[in-house]
Amino acid sequence: MTKTRLYTPGPVETPPQVLNAASGAMLHHRSSAFVDIFLETRNRLAEMAKVEGEDVIILAASGSAAFEAGLINTVPKGAKVLSINAGKFGERWFKVATSYGYEVVEYKLDWGNVADPLEVARLLKEHPDCAALMTTHSETSTGALHDVAAISKAAKEIIPDMFVLVDCVTSLGVCDVDPNTWNIDGMFSGSQKGLMSPPGLAFAWLSERAWASVNNLNSYFYMDLRKERAAQQKGQTAYTAAVGLVQSLNVALEMLLAEGKEAVWARREHMNQAIIDAAVSMGCTPFAERTSPAVAALRAPEAVAAPDIVKAFAKRGMTIAGGQDHAKPYLFRPSVMGYADSYDVITVVAALEDVLRELGQDVAYGSAVAVAMKYLNTTA
Amino acid sequence: MTKTRLYTPGPVETPPQVLNAASGAMLHHRSSAFVDIFLETRNRLAEMAKVEGEDVIILAASGSAAFEAGLINTVPKGAKVLSINAGKFGERWFKVATSYGYEVVEYKLDWGNVADPLEVARLLKEHPDCAALMTTHSETSTGALHDVAAISKAAKEIIPDMFVLVDCVTSLGVCDVDPNTWNIDGMFSGSQKGLMSPPGLAFAWLSERAWASVNNLNSYFYMDLRKERAAQQKGQTAYTAAVGLVQSLNVALEMLLAEGKEAVWARREHMNQAIIDAAVSMGCTPFAERTSPAVAALRAPEAVAAPDIVKAFAKRGMTIAGGQDHAKPYLFRPSVMGYADSYDVITVVAALEDVLRELGQDVAYGSAVAVAMKYLNTTA
Repeated sequence: MTKTRLYTPGPVETPPQVLNAASGAMLHHRSSAFVDIFLETRNRLAEMAKVEGEDVIILAASGSAAFEAGLINTVPKGAKVLSINAGKFGERWFKVATSYGYEVVEYKLDWGNVADPLEVARLLKEHPDCAALMTTHSETSTGALHDVAAISKAAKEIIPDMFVLVDCVTSLGVCDVDPNTWNIDGMFSGSQKGLMSPPGLAFAWLSERAWASVNNLNSYFYMDLRKERAAQQKGQTAYTAAVGLVQSLNVALEMLLAEGKEAVWARREHMNQAIIDAAVSMGCTPFAERTSPAVAALRAPEAVAAPDIVKAFAKRGMTIAGGQDHAKPYLFRPSVMGYADSYDVITVVAALEDVLRELGQDVAYGSAVAVAMKYLNTTA
Repeated sequence: MTKTRLYTPGPVETPPQVLNAASGAMLHHRSSAFVDIFLETRNRLAEMAKVEGEDVIILAASGSAAFEAGLINTVPKGAKVLSINAGKFGERWFKVATSYGYEVVEYKLDWGNVADPLEVARLLKEHPDCAALMTTHSETSTGALHDVAAISKAAKEIIPDMFVLVDCVTSLGVCDVDPNTWNIDGMFSGSQKGLMSPPGLAFAWLSERAWASVNNLNSYFYMDLRKERAAQQKGQTAYTAAVGLVQSLNVALEMLLAEGKEAVWARREHMNQAIIDAAVSMGCTPFAERTSPAVAALRAPEAVAAPDIVKAFAKRGMTIAGGQDHAKPYLFRPSVMGYADSYDVITVVAALEDVLRELGQDVAYGSAVAVAMKYLNTTA
C-alpha cells in the first residue's frame, strides 16, 4: 500500500476539517448564511494579511488572475513598468505585462538570486517614468524570498507615486506580509499555499492610493476590481462566489489564527530550515540566496539527477516539486507549508535519505534525520 | 498547530477514500444497489479470511458481540468451556461465558505469555466434557499472538468434537487467519483494526459442524446467527444494515486485496517489528512472549512511567494506547496496523525518541530512527 502525501509548494496537505467544511448542504451565494461566512472569511484573511477586512477582495480564480487584475486595474494602458524577474513567477508577471502592451523594463536575475534594492533604484533612475514595479515576494520556482520592504522603499525614494505590486501567493500565511508598513500598493495571493486550503480562490488588496487610480483603460469585465469591491463591501460578490472554497478557507484561517500568525510563521520557517539543514548534510545545496520559508529549494548532489529524486519520492507515495525549465536537471523542491508538523519534516528527510541511498549516495541510516531532529529540538 | 495521528491498536487511521465511501447519498438497506455492495463486501471479507463468502456474517455491532453470539449460538446452556485468559480480551470471553452460566475452566496466564498447547491438552484431559475452547488470537492488551493452529490441534486430539472459538478481532487483516486449515469452529472479528475501516461492524464465521449444532438454548434475538445467515445468504441482513460502514469496509478491503493479503501481512509484521527494535535500542522491552504484528506492546524503561509516555505522545497530536489494568504503570502500545506505511513507523519512532528525551532518557537524536530505517530497508 502506498499512502499518499503531498509535499509540494502548493497545493498542499489540507486538514480534513477544511475539506469537510465544503461538504455540507450547498449554500446559495446570495443567502444570508453565506454572506456571514464570506464576511468572516474576509476578516480573517485581512487579519492574516495585516490589512482592513473591507479592503480585501476574494475572487473565484487562481492567484495569477488576482495579480493580472491588480496590474490592469491600476496601471494605464501603455505605461512603463519595472518587472523583477528572478524565476518562473517573476517571468509570468513580465509576460502578463508584455501581453497587455505595457512597456516593460526587465530586471532579470539568475534563478535563486533576490533583487538588490540598489539595482532597483538604479533602474528607476534610468526610467523615471515607470508607473509601477512588479515583483514576487516568495519566488516559488527558486525558493527565494525577495526583501519587499527594502525594494518598495528603494523604489519610492526614486519615484514616490509609483505603484509597487507584489505577488504574495506563497508568502501569505507562511511569513510576515505587511502591505501598509512596507508601503506597497497591491498584494495578491491564493488559497492553496500557506493558507492550506483547496485551490480556486485568489485574493487582491490595493492601497488607497491605488484604488484612487483604478481605471478601466484596459478592456476587462470579470477582472474589474471596482465592481468586486463595491459588491464585497456589502458581503456579496460580483459573480457567483466559490461557496465551498470560501467555507473551507474560513475553517483553515480559523485554525491558523487560533495558533497565532506569528507562531505559524515561526513554525514554518523552522520546519523548512530543518529540511534544508538535513539535506545539506547529505550533499544537497540550498538554492536560494535568501530562503523563503515556503519551500526547500535544493540542488541535488552532483552525481544525482533531480528528476530521479522526484520520481523516487513518487514511488513512495510522496509528491514533491522538481525544478522548472533550465533548473529541471538539478533542482528539487519539497515543501511543508500546508497541514504539516515537525513529524512531516522527519518524513520528508527520511524519504530523502532513502531516495539518495537508492540513487547511489552514501548516506548512513538516520544521519540526516538526526540533523533535522536536533535542529527541530534545539533551536527556536 | 497540532496535526492529529491515530496510532492505537484500533480504531486506526483510515484512508480518506474509505471514509468518503460513506458520504454519498444514503442507500436503503433493502435496495439492489446496497445488496450488490453488501455481497461484494462479504466476498472480499471472506477472501481476506480464507473462507467462503456465503458463510461470513456481517453484524451491525462491535467485535465483542460477534464473539458472544458465536458462543451462545453454538454451545448449549450450562455446558463446560475452557477459557484461555492471557490478557484483557481473554478475560472478557471468560466473563461473557460466566455471565451466561457456562461452567468455565480457566487457563490463566501471566500477561504477555501465550497459551502452551501441552497445557491445553492437559486441562482438557482433566475436563473431557468441555464443549468448547475460547481464545483470542492476537491479544491486543499484551501484544501477544497465540498459536491458534497448535492450540486447536492439541484440543481436538483430546476432544475431537469440541468447538474452538477464536477472537480474531486484531488479527484479521494483520496476519494469516485460516479457519479451515486450523480446524477451528468460530472466527470473529471487527472492522476497525486490520481492515482500517470505521468501527461498528462485527464479523462471524462458523464451521459447518458448528452451524449444524446452532441452537437456541440461550435466550437471544438480535444475536441469533441463524436468522442472520438465512438473510445474508440472500444479500440481506436480518435487521437494518449499517449501510455506510459496509460501503467504507468494501473500499478498504478492495485496497487491501489489491495489495495482496500476504503482502499486507508481511508489511505489517515488518513495520511492527521495526518499532519494537527501535524501542529496544532506547531501553524499552518487548512485552509479548510471541509478538502479534498488530501492536508493539512495550515495557517502558525502568525510570519512566508509561502513562507519561502516552501523555507526551498526546501533546504531539499522536494517540497511542497505554497499558490496561495492572499493566498501566509500565506498558505502552503504539500500533501502525491501520492506514500506515513505513514513514508512519519513522514518525512513531521519532516521536518516541522525543518523548523519552523529554522524560529524561539519554537518547541521541536520530539513533532509534536509524535502527528502524536500517531494519525497514535491509530486512524483508
